[in-house]
Amino acid sequence: MTLVLGIDIGGTATRAVVTTLGGTRAGFGRAGAANPVTIPAAEAAANLTAAISAALSTVDASRIGVAVAGAAGGSRPAVLQAAFDTLGVQCPLHVVGDAEVAFAAGTGEPDGSVLISGTGAVAAEISGGRIFRTADGLGWLLGDLGSGFWIGRTAATATARALYRGDPPGPLVARVTAAVDETAADPFVVAVHTWKPRDLASLAPLVTAAAADGDTLALSIMDEAATHLCETVAEIRPPGDRSPIVLAGGVLRHCSWLRASVHDQLRVTWPEAVVCLAAPGEEGAARLAARLLR
Amino acid sequence: MTLVLGIDIGGTATRAVVTTLGGTRAGFGRAGAANPVTIPAAEAAANLTAAISAALSTVDASRIGVAVAGAAGGSRPAVLQAAFDTLGVQCPLHVVGDAEVAFAAGTGEPDGSVLISGTGAVAAEISGGRIFRTADGLGWLLGDLGSGFWIGRTAATATARALYRGDPPGPLVARVTAAVDETAADPFVVAVHTWKPRDLASLAPLVTAAAADGDTLALSIMDEAATHLCETVAEIRPPGDRSPIVLAGGVLRHCSWLRASVHDQLRVTWPEAVVCLAAPGEEGAARLAARLLR
Repeated sequence: MTLVLGIDIGGTATRAVVTTLGGTRAGFGRAGAANPVTIPAAEAAANLTAAISAALSTVDASRIGVAVAGAAGGSRPAVLQAAFDTLGVQCPLHVVGDAEVAFAAGTGEPDGSVLISGTGAVAAEISGGRIFRTADGLGWLLGDLGSGFWIGRTAATATARALYRGDPPGPLVARVTAAVDETAADPFVVAVHTWKPRDLASLAPLVTAAAADGDTLALSIMDEAATHLCETVAEIRPPGDRSPIVLAGGVLRHCSWLRASVHDQLRVTWPEAVVCLAAPGEEGAARLAARLLR
Repeated sequence: MTLVLGIDIGGTATRAVVTTLGGTRAGFGRAGAANPVTIPAAEAAANLTAAISAALSTVDASRIGVAVAGAAGGSRPAVLQAAFDTLGVQCPLHVVGDAEVAFAAGTGEPDGSVLISGTGAVAAEISGGRIFRTADGLGWLLGDLGSGFWIGRTAATATARALYRGDPPGPLVARVTAAVDETAADPFVVAVHTWKPRDLASLAPLVTAAAADGDTLALSIMDEAATHLCETVAEIRPPGDRSPIVLAGGVLRHCSWLRASVHDQLRVTWPEAVVCLAAPGEEGAARLAARLLR
């Protein structure tokens, strides 16, 4: 039986899955980030090799008919091909945008919109299965509004402001100061600036947890993130569009509070559209790979 | 005659001035950034030594009675003292917040407010010549709204969005793409992410120039910067306060359009306050030094 390999290259993790053409899982691997824009080439190559190697450990690699990898931003096919060569994988490899993979992970339709919030954030209009245009996706320095980075950075800013004002620490401030290991204002700000900026996305789950505690600061950050994400969708999606809207990315997948808020806001503008949650990106990549063989 | 040494340690430049107790300039030096939060210690030491050495080249260092240095964020007196030791400067050294220096550079009053927009941005309430409380000043990653960094970063974001939309390039987009040396959307975003973030402040003068050309994008960025700066002042200054408001920092000193907009907005909220522009920070530091000897 012919197998396919699907790879999702994200800002926080790289995941690879081997499936049958019908989508039954035969192998899986996970490693650290291999995002080609922000991760050094050697580290990206090591993480890609580790994830693919783990996925292949339970199957015969020669049975894989085709591989599809989804990557945010400018892709680095050479790094991916080098990992294939190292592992002796000889099937054809297609590198596509992470938005195409995410859309395929959420729907079998050819046209619609996809909103991704993971470490970064982007919305894309998909036409005939391909990205037609995008909004945001500008990276942590210039955009990614409503992403895990944005939520984490906004939580750090809110915490710094609370420390300078001398507010009694609520659930969010208590969690963030514990994570940064500084409770005084000046040292807190200095410590955060020593982080790699994208690592601020690691604070996003603290906002989710504090929101669940009813922390008003955390809830307002989540509200603002949801509004940003829906505004990003509106940049590429006309009013009245009835095509599906796929929600994807680690933040939208794992933060049910944010997902519900985004869902509600999207339904106000596009009441006739199906809004659905994508499967993990590597499964979308495997679905695209299977389509290539049919 | 006794002399004093004033030093301004900024995010972009370090400046040192030697003056008489009456403020007459006897020596001056300028070097690169020595901000203790964001510049490595060795680079900070080299720039401090260069600026002070140049300022002392026209005077007898043994005549200097006291030195005052203003520094943003957590100061590094050891780095400064090492520069003094290297140069054989033996007078007492006082390191104070850049807001105290900026306020003294704008007024002889003991109480009031100071708003600094340079590479970073901060507002402070000054009481008895000392910082009583501050707002923003959170650094490029967490705040500094309306600073040179913020203006430059916002210009880069606006440019990226215009490139993705395919807008015909106006004066701002033309200047920013020329500075980044990329005119296509994806390569532009990747190139900006290779910059040291604080270097985005170097784009701020392009916004000033484009605003002078009447570019609506540049004007809206300047408007938003002015609003942010005035909101930062409002965090530390009560309504109805009649004490002076000092405007300082390279961006407020050199961008007359932004300064006028900030001035107008401040006068709406505090119509009875004098709003004045500070002299360069090193002159404020020298004034504080002279006061110590009177």
